[in-house]
Amino acid sequence: MKTRRDFIQQVALTAAAVPLLRLPAIAHPLREESQLRVAFMGLGGYANRVADAMKDCTKARITGAISGTPSKLSDWQQRFNIPAANCYNYENFDKIKDNPDIDVVYVTTPNGLHHSQVLRIAAAGKHVICEKPMALNAREGQEMVDACKKAGVQLLIGYRMHFEPKTLAINNMRNSGVFGKVKFFQGQCGFTIGDPTQWRLNKELAGGGSIMDIGIYAINGSRYMTGEDPIWVTAQEVKTDPVKFKPGVDETIMFEMGFPSGAVASCLSTYSMNYLDRFYLIGEKGFAELQPSTGYGPIKGRTHLGELTQPHKTHQTVQMDEMADIILRGKKPVIPVNGEEGVKDLKIIDAIYAAVKSGKKETLHLG
Amino acid sequence: MKTRRDFIQQVALTAAAVPLLRLPAIAHPLREESQLRVAFMGLGGYANRVADAMKDCTKARITGAISGTPSKLSDWQQRFNIPAANCYNYENFDKIKDNPDIDVVYVTTPNGLHHSQVLRIAAAGKHVICEKPMALNAREGQEMVDACKKAGVQLLIGYRMHFEPKTLAINNMRNSGVFGKVKFFQGQCGFTIGDPTQWRLNKELAGGGSIMDIGIYAINGSRYMTGEDPIWVTAQEVKTDPVKFKPGVDETIMFEMGFPSGAVASCLSTYSMNYLDRFYLIGEKGFAELQPSTGYGPIKGRTHLGELTQPHKTHQTVQMDEMADIILRGKKPVIPVNGEEGVKDLKIIDAIYAAVKSGKKETLHLG
Repeated sequence: MKTRRDFIQQVALTAAAVPLLRLPAIAHPLREESQLRVAFMGLGGYANRVADAMKDCTKARITGAISGTPSKLSDWQQRFNIPAANCYNYENFDKIKDNPDIDVVYVTTPNGLHHSQVLRIAAAGKHVICEKPMALNAREGQEMVDACKKAGVQLLIGYRMHFEPKTLAINNMRNSGVFGKVKFFQGQCGFTIGDPTQWRLNKELAGGGSIMDIGIYAINGSRYMTGEDPIWVTAQEVKTDPVKFKPGVDETIMFEMGFPSGAVASCLSTYSMNYLDRFYLIGEKGFAELQPSTGYGPIKGRTHLGELTQPHKTHQTVQMDEMADIILRGKKPVIPVNGEEGVKDLKIIDAIYAAVKSGKKETLHLG
Repeated sequence: MKTRRDFIQQVALTAAAVPLLRLPAIAHPLREESQLRVAFMGLGGYANRVADAMKDCTKARITGAISGTPSKLSDWQQRFNIPAANCYNYENFDKIKDNPDIDVVYVTTPNGLHHSQVLRIAAAGKHVICEKPMALNAREGQEMVDACKKAGVQLLIGYRMHFEPKTLAINNMRNSGVFGKVKFFQGQCGFTIGDPTQWRLNKELAGGGSIMDIGIYAINGSRYMTGEDPIWVTAQEVKTDPVKFKPGVDETIMFEMGFPSGAVASCLSTYSMNYLDRFYLIGEKGFAELQPSTGYGPIKGRTHLGELTQPHKTHQTVQMDEMADIILRGKKPVIPVNGEEGVKDLKIIDAIYAAVKSGKKETLHLG
C-alpha cells in the first residue's frame, strides 16, 4: 500500500502544481483505477472509528483533515500520514477547492453544523459524505441536496448498515419474495447515554435527542427492511429525567408508522435504556430478525429458514470501499445512500416531533 | 384416582340427598381435603383443551357440563365420566343451584354471552371461572364483579399465564429488583385467524377482533410484567382485509401505554400475522424475554443472567389446581386472577378502541 499511496499522492501533488491539468470536481467521478481520497471534517470519536476502519480499505484512503483543534490535526497527520498541506480549520476549509488531493469530505461534526458545512464543501466543488442525521430538519436537508446538485458534487449519507452483509441478505430475500407480503416491522434502538454535557444532549447542536442519534436507525431501518416509505406516523414521548434531557431533547420516543401496502411499524428510540438493538420483520410467509441490528460489532441475523451466516466485516471499512465505487465509478448501491434518502429520514423525524406535539397521526409525503 | 374420585362423588351425592347437610355456596370456600368440582359452560375447542388438561389435576375435577348441543353433552358425559344429572343446557342451567356436586362453572362461551351467563351462575350461588375477556366492556365486567360479590361467590378469570413457572420466575426477579427500575415492556401477540365464519370474527359475539382474543395477552402481560397499571394509552388500527374483518372487528392494532413510574409499553395485536408471541421487559439493570410468551406449549424465557430452566407444565393443569386452592382454601395467588383484574383489562380495551377512534392519547383510571 505504501508505494501505491505514495505514487498516487505524488500524482496528485503534481496535478496540483500544474493547474491546467486539474479537473473540476464534476469531472472526477469516473476514475477507474484510483482510490477515493477522503478528508474528515470533525475529528471526534466517530471520525476516529471510521478512520481506523479505513486502514483495511482497498478503495479509499484518508488524505485530509478539518478540525478546530490544532492538536487533533497534528495527531491525525501522524496517525494517518496526512500532509500538513491537507489540513484545514473551520475558518479556512473553503480553500479545499484548490486541493486536488481530496475527492470527498466526510462530515462527522455535530448535527447542527452539517447544513452550513455541507453547503461550503459543495461550493468548494468536493463530494460529500455526511453523517446522519444529515441536518436538523428536512428543509435544511433539501437545501443541502439542492446545493450539491447545483455544484455537481455527490452527496452521500453515512448509512453503514446499507452495506452490512446480513442486512443485505435479508433485503435480497425480501425482494425475492421469501417473506411474502411484508406485514410488520419492529425497530428498537437505544442506549443509556452518559456525559450530560456532550453535544448530543444540546438542542442547538443535536437538533433533538435520541431520535436524531439512535432512533434514526429504526426510521431508516423501517424503510430498508420493508422496502417501502411510510405514509403516516404517530409518536409518544416520555421523559423521566428532565434535568439530563432538557426541553427539545427527547429521552424516549415510541413511534408507529403505516406503509402503502398496509404494513405497519412499531419503533422505540431511547437514551435511557440498554438491552435493545433489534429489528424484526414479519411477512406472510416468514420472518427476519437482526439482533443486534445496528451496533458496530457483528450483526446477528436469522429468518424462518435459519441463521444467517454471512461473515462480519467492519461496517465502516465496507462502507468506505463501496462509497468509493459509488463516487468514483458510478456504482449503484443495493440500498440507496444519497442525500434524498437523508431528506426522507428527516421528513419522518420532523413528523415524529410534530406528532409528539399534536398527539395525532401525521401524514407523510416522502415523494 | 378412580377410587378417590368415586368416593368424593359418592359423598357429594349423599350430601345432595340430605339437604340439611348441604352447605350454601358462600360456605364452600374452606374445604380442606376435597377437589374443586368444575362444570364447563360452552363445550368448544378451549373447553376441551382445559378438560383434557384437567386429567392431570390433583385438586380439581370435572363434574358437570352445560351446552346447547345434546351431542356434545353426551360426548362429555362419556369422556369425562359426568353423570347425566350434572348436564344442563342454556335454558335450564339455573337449576345448577340445587346441584351440590358442582362448586364452580368455567365459562368458555363466546365473549358476548359471558355477562348474562355469569350473572345467572352467580344467582345460582356457584363460583365462576370466566375466560378472558370476561365481557365486552368494563361496564359489563364491573356488573359481573358486583353480582358475584353480592351472591357471595368468587369470580376468577382464566389467566393461565399467571401460574406459568417462567412467567412467575420473572415476576419474582422483578420484585426482587433483579432488573432494577422497569423502563419498557413490549408485547407482541397475534396469529393468522382462519375460518371467517367463526364467532371470534362476529362483532356481536366477540365484541371486537384481535384485541379481545389475543391482544388481551399483551394488555394483561404489560401489567404483570411491569408490576404496574397503565395510566394512558394510544392506539393505531390497520385493516388490510375489510371483507374478513367487518366493521368493529379489528384485524391489527398497535397500542402504547404509559405507567406511573415512567415505564412505557409498545404492543401489537393482530389476526393477520404469524411469527410473533414475544414479551420483552427492559429494566435499568437487565432484561427479561419470554418467547413464546403466551402460546399453549412450553414457554421459553431468558434474562440478562441466562436461560430460564423451570420445567414446562401444561398451563391449564396448573391453573385449575391453583384455582382449586384459591376457591376452596383461600390461597392468594402471586399474580391476582380475580374479576377486578378482568375489569382492568377491559378498561384498557375500552380505552384502546376509544384511542383508535379519537386518534388521541386516552387517560386510564384503573383504580
